[in-house]
Formats: sequence, C-alpha cells, structure tokens
Amino acid sequence: MDSQIETQGIVIVGEEICRQVISRTDAFAAVSDVFAAMARGDAYNFPVVREAIGHADALYGFKGGFDRAGLSLGLKAGGYWPGNAAKGLTNHQSTVCLFDPDTGQLSALVGGNYLTALRTAASSSVSIAHLARKDAKVLGMVGAGHQSTFQLRAAAEQRDFEKVVAWNPHPEMLPRLQAVAADLGLAFEGVSPEELGAQADVIITITSAHQPLLMADWIRPGTHIACMGTDTTGKQEVDPALLARAAVFADEVAQSVSIGEAQHAVAQGLISEGDITPVGAVINGTHAGRAANGDITLFDGTGVGLQDLAVASVAATIARERGLGEVVRLG
Amino acid sequence: MDSQIETQGIVIVGEEICRQVISRTDAFAAVSDVFAAMARGDAYNFPVVREAIGHADALYGFKGGFDRAGLSLGLKAGGYWPGNAAKGLTNHQSTVCLFDPDTGQLSALVGGNYLTALRTAASSSVSIAHLARKDAKVLGMVGAGHQSTFQLRAAAEQRDFEKVVAWNPHPEMLPRLQAVAADLGLAFEGVSPEELGAQADVIITITSAHQPLLMADWIRPGTHIACMGTDTTGKQEVDPALLARAAVFADEVAQSVSIGEAQHAVAQGLISEGDITPVGAVINGTHAGRAANGDITLFDGTGVGLQDLAVASVAATIARERGLGEVVRLG
Repeated sequence: MDSQIETQGIVIVGEEICRQVISRTDAFAAVSDVFAAMARGDAYNFPVVREAIGHADALYGFKGGFDRAGLSLGLKAGGYWPGNAAKGLTNHQSTVCLFDPDTGQLSALVGGNYLTALRTAASSSVSIAHLARKDAKVLGMVGAGHQSTFQLRAAAEQRDFEKVVAWNPHPEMLPRLQAVAADLGLAFEGVSPEELGAQADVIITITSAHQPLLMADWIRPGTHIACMGTDTTGKQEVDPALLARAAVFADEVAQSVSIGEAQHAVAQGLISEGDITPVGAVINGTHAGRAANGDITLFDGTGVGLQDLAVASVAATIARERGLGEVVRLG
Repeated sequence: MDSQIETQGIVIVGEEICRQVISRTDAFAAVSDVFAAMARGDAYNFPVVREAIGHADALYGFKGGFDRAGLSLGLKAGGYWPGNAAKGLTNHQSTVCLFDPDTGQLSALVGGNYLTALRTAASSSVSIAHLARKDAKVLGMVGAGHQSTFQLRAAAEQRDFEKVVAWNPHPEMLPRLQAVAADLGLAFEGVSPEELGAQADVIITITSAHQPLLMADWIRPGTHIACMGTDTTGKQEVDPALLARAAVFADEVAQSVSIGEAQHAVAQGLISEGDITPVGAVINGTHAGRAANGDITLFDGTGVGLQDLAVASVAATIARERGLGEVVRLG
C-alpha cells in the first residue's frame, strides 16, 4: 500500500525562478485575495511555531495555513541565522512547501526569500490601496534595510506620489532608497522622524526596532501608516498612543494583538482586540475602511503564513505552466 | 543580499531510496539515540500542529524538532487523507524536510511514508530491548494493519521469541502477520484478546482503536506492553487500570499524557505525569527500567517528530554518500 501514483510530481521553484515568474501585480492580487478569504472565514492560519533553537543563535519555525478558496495548503519553514552574512548567505532563510489539498502529497518546493520580501510589500500595498487618502502625495519610509526597497516600489504603484521622505537609524543606508526613488521618478529627502511625520501622507515602517520610532504627536490627521516590522513579542515601531488615536486594521487580528505592533497598546489597555478590523473586511466591503479624510489609519502587518502560500502558489503554477523548475518525485 | 552559496544543495530522497538505504538496525540506533538525547535535554520536539482542514476529510499538520546532539533540525509535514485509497494512493501521506542547523537552508527532502512505519517499529523495539524480560518467548500482536508487519519484524530481533499470538478485530487480516511470522521461523496462532494476554510475554498494540482492547486482568505479571496506536485525543488501546498496575514509560511524557495512551489513566486520576518515565532515561542508565521479573512494564509510544528527523537524517546521509537521489537547489 506504499505505492503511489504521483501525477504531477514536485516542482522545484528556486529563488531565481521566483524572480522571473511573479510580478508585484501578481503578489498584490494573491495577498489581497487571501486577506479577503481570511476575513470571510475561507482561509485560516495554523498556530505559529517559532523557537530559539539554542544553536547558531538561530530562530526557527513554521507558519502554515489552508485557503479553502484558493486551495493552497502548506507552510513556510525557516528563520533567522545571524551568522549567515559572514558566510555570504542571507540571514533570513525560508522555504515554502505546498501540498495538494486533495491528496496530501507535496506538490511544490519554493524558495521563500524573495517571496517573503514581495509578499510583505504586497501587504502594506494592499493596505494603502484600501486605506490611504486618494490624494496622498508624500510617502514616508522608516527603515532602509533590504525589504525597504520592495516596500517603496510596491507602495509607489498605489497612489500618485510625488516625493519620498525617509529616515533610518543608520543614515548611511539611505542612498539605497534614494536610488529606488530616483528610478521611480520621485523626489527624495532624508529627514528626522518628526519631520517625516510632518510631511508624509502615507508612512511605512519596516525596521526591527524594539522601541517607538514615531511618536503619536508627530503624525498628522489624514495619515495612513503601515507598520510592517513587528512580528515578535517585544518588537515595536510606533508610540502605542498612536494606535489609540488611529483606526487600526491588521492582516490577522489575533496575531496583531499577540506579536504585532498592537501588542503594546493592548497590553497598556489603550485599545482592545475588538478595536482592530481585519483589512480583508475592507477588501470584501463589509467594513468601510477610512471614515473621513482627517482620520489616521494604521495597518498592523504582522505577516501570516497564508501570504507566503498565496504567492508561492502563484509562482509554482506559473513555473509549471512555463516548464520552469525541475520536477522530482518522492513516491 | 539574496545571493546564496549552497554548498550541498537539497538531496531528494524518495520512498524507494529510503527502502534501499536504511535498515532496521539503522532505525533502531537512530531512534534510541534521539530518545536518549531527549531525556538528557539535548533534543526537543516543537509544539505539534494538527488540524482538521475542512477539505477532503483530511487531517494535516507538522511535527518538528531539533536534536543538538545529532544536529537534525526540521519537520515532518503531512497527514491523513481518507479518500486516497480509492485513488490508488496511501491514505497516510508525509514528507520530511531537513534543514542545515548551521545556516537554516533546506538540506534534504525525504519521503516519510516508509520511514514512519520504520521509526514506529524502532520505537517499540527500543522499549522491548530495554524493558522486556530477557527470557520472553511469546510475542502478542494486537492489530494486523500495514504497520503491524514492521512492528513484528523489529520486535523479533530483540528477544529469542518462539511464537507469535495475534488478534485483530478483522480476523481476515491475520494471514499477513502469519506470513511474516513464518518468514521469521516463528510459530503463529490467532487467539482471542484474553488468550493473547494469557500467553504473551511481550505485547505490541498497533491499532486505531477508540476503546480498550485489552483489560488489565488479562495481563500476566512480567509482561511488557508497547502501546503504539494512540496518538490523538480519544484514541485508546488498553484498560486505564493497566497503567495504574504497570511501570509506565513513554517516548515523550508531555505527549503521552495529552494525546498518548496515558491520557485516559491521567484523566481518571489513576496515574499522574510524574509516574511516567521517559524511556531515554533507561537508555541513558539514569533510570533502572524493569525492577523485577514480575513487574508489568508499559511503553506509551506516541510518535514524536524527532524520530522522523532521526531516521530521515540517516537516510539522507547514506543517500548522499552513495550518490542516490537528485540534488536540487533553491538558491
């Protein structure tokens, strides 16, 4: 009874194929669809496993889920290996395993490093599409690491921005963002965090900070903020008082209050879980989103396994259609 | 910073290669070593994810862990798809992903179906080696499904058995076990469960029962019982009173009391978690094991992710050494 009929085999979709086959538009659609499915109850994330393994200072774990609408099932496995850079490897390492929901057989193995950046950028981008003011002109970027350029490119497609203002704790990293802004034909200015708040209509925070980088008083009415960096207990990017002032949205509310940016405001009693709306409800039209041009909207993008599965499924499907990627079999 | 140096690539170790490269002796050593590492605190299992996904009546999940001594890191993903048999596929489907603990990169993809049967048989076999009476002559088998033949072959190597007595709720399945007994040169008799208890020195239960199949009064002093079928809330193979009478051992105590055979005796207050000894402590010599020939010993084999990683690591290492299995790259 061990003999197996594998009709499709397992398609191996490496990092380079991911870069070739999946566009920002594809990622936006996939992430938007899965957020909508989550809000309808058609897709759900499994409990997250995340462990400090006590070796190589690594954090390792799995984020999985199932989307009954999109029929993607599986997990992203991997983590953070801080010693990798010294070996010429990426510190963040991840791999997505997709399973056939009809048979339980592995159907695709997909490199998760490029896709993680792409799906995280698609997430803030979906929030901007649905929550930012239509007339937003200035984009504020807090953070200038690897993922910031993905964020900037995706956000720039959502509104008719004219200028980027940016701050990073290490200002010597700003030229990376400046080059992307130039490529997009946007003016660029390095500013203080306070000045960033004073100028920006839309702000993206994408750091690994453990303390507030933006204070509530610095943020103007009408601003939309996407907090994308906080995905662990103890991380924090903005003043908890800002969440009390803002209309708060999240990819997944349960994760937002436990390991997302909202963890601090909830712990301090400034807001409660019921004050947070899944962004999928706005996509589905069951929640209106921004109520007035003067509101502050805040999106807590914690990063869920279903996002990874959604973009990996697109990559695997296109790779298979185009005959890219080896096909291997276990059965 | 996405460029990666992958020195080894990912070796694809299919079911057929697993059959070729890993012996019962290898599996016994690997499972014994990891049980010992768990008892020393050198290896631990991550929280188990197990979900009824609401599609195809499937149960799906992940069992992962890290063995700092054996340096195996990863997970087994898969589950139970009851409609597979009608499609010519195995209902139980699983795949093991091994990661390099030094870099977080995927190092091997290993078919998990054959290995699951092999590692489960190795587990009861380790318990027999350390807990059964040396003069055991009669082996009792409760259950005659797919895994029972693996159990019988592994157990037969641990003591100088002369006879197998067997019971199965569907007696028409017993000839499968009888053929294996004949192959091993052992006498065989199909018996009632009560008669099985009266004759057997060592008993293995390997069923998916949800009620006691063996009552405490049927078991003779000096018997060793390995309960291998219970791995989920609600499953049950033996009378809870038997656990109160026996010296109880387990692969992992926490899992034994939650989803293992001991769940019922603990729920009824007959024993507590502190009454259960990890079998690794016996392997390490920090617990004496069987105290007297007249004791009943009971091993609750719940099945842990580390067992899967242990045998998959052996299979991947040998496959790589022998140049078996494709090598693919994601980076």
